[in-house]
Amino acid sequence: MQLTRHTDYALRLLIYLCSTEEQYVAIAEVAEAQAISRTHLMKIANQLAHEGFIEAVRGRGGGIRLARDPGQINLAKVIAVTEPGCDLIDCTGCRLARRCKLPGILDEATLAFRQVLERYTLADLLKERRLAV
Amino acid sequence: MQLTRHTDYALRLLIYLCSTEEQYVAIAEVAEAQAISRTHLMKIANQLAHEGFIEAVRGRGGGIRLARDPGQINLAKVIAVTEPGCDLIDCTGCRLARRCKLPGILDEATLAFRQVLERYTLADLLKERRLAV
Repeated sequence: MQLTRHTDYALRLLIYLCSTEEQYVAIAEVAEAQAISRTHLMKIANQLAHEGFIEAVRGRGGGIRLARDPGQINLAKVIAVTEPGCDLIDCTGCRLARRCKLPGILDEATLAFRQVLERYTLADLLKERRLAV
Repeated sequence: MQLTRHTDYALRLLIYLCSTEEQYVAIAEVAEAQAISRTHLMKIANQLAHEGFIEAVRGRGGGIRLARDPGQINLAKVIAVTEPGCDLIDCTGCRLARRCKLPGILDEATLAFRQVLERYTLADLLKERRLAV
C-alpha cells in the first residue's frame, strides 16, 4: 500500500515550510533541499495554494509560505486533496465485480485510515518546530 | 492510495476460487476469466499455496482450490502476505526525516486500516457464494 509520490512531495513541502524560520521560501530552495524536481514541486505548490494551504508572493523577496497556522492544516484534508481517487484496487475486468463486496470493505478500511489522520495537523509532525533545517 | 497489483490479483484469485463450484480449477481458467497474465497468476498461486491459503494438485483433473473454508481466510492476513512492505511513503532524501513524526502517524493509520480488514474473511466478499460465475 502506498501513497502517491504527489502526496509524498506535498507533505515534504508543507513540512519544510513548517520547519523554516524564513518568512518566504523560494520553490528552488525546497526543491534542492528535499531532492524534488522543481517543475513537479511547482505543480504541487500551485495545487496547495489553490486549496488555501500555502500562499505565494511573486518577485524579489517573495516565495511561498504556509497560509495558515500549522495547527490548522489537517493531514486528512491535505491527503483528500492530493489523493482524490480513493480506489485502492481497480475492479476493471474482474468478472465477479458485480457481486463482490470488497470495494465496500476497502472503503470502510480507508475511512478508518483517514479518521486517524483527521486527528493530526502539520503542527504534530515536527518534533521541534521552527528550528533551522 | 493504492494496493499493489499483486494484492489485487491475489484477491481476484481467491474470490474466484470461492465463487466456483468446481473442486479444482486450472490456473489458465482463472487467468482467462479474470484477465490476468498466466505467468503472474502462477507466481501469486505459488505464494498463496506457500502461505496455506490455497492448495494445488498436479496432473489431469488437478488444479488449485482453497485450502481452508472461506470463513477461515482473513483478509488482513492475505494482505499482510501480499503487501509485506507497509511504508506508505518513502522518506529517502527528505532532510527532515530524522525529526519527523509522519511515519509513526501513518503506521497508526495503517493499523486502523488493517483492523477493519481483520473483521472480514473471504466468505464475506461474495453476495452469493458458490454460484456459477
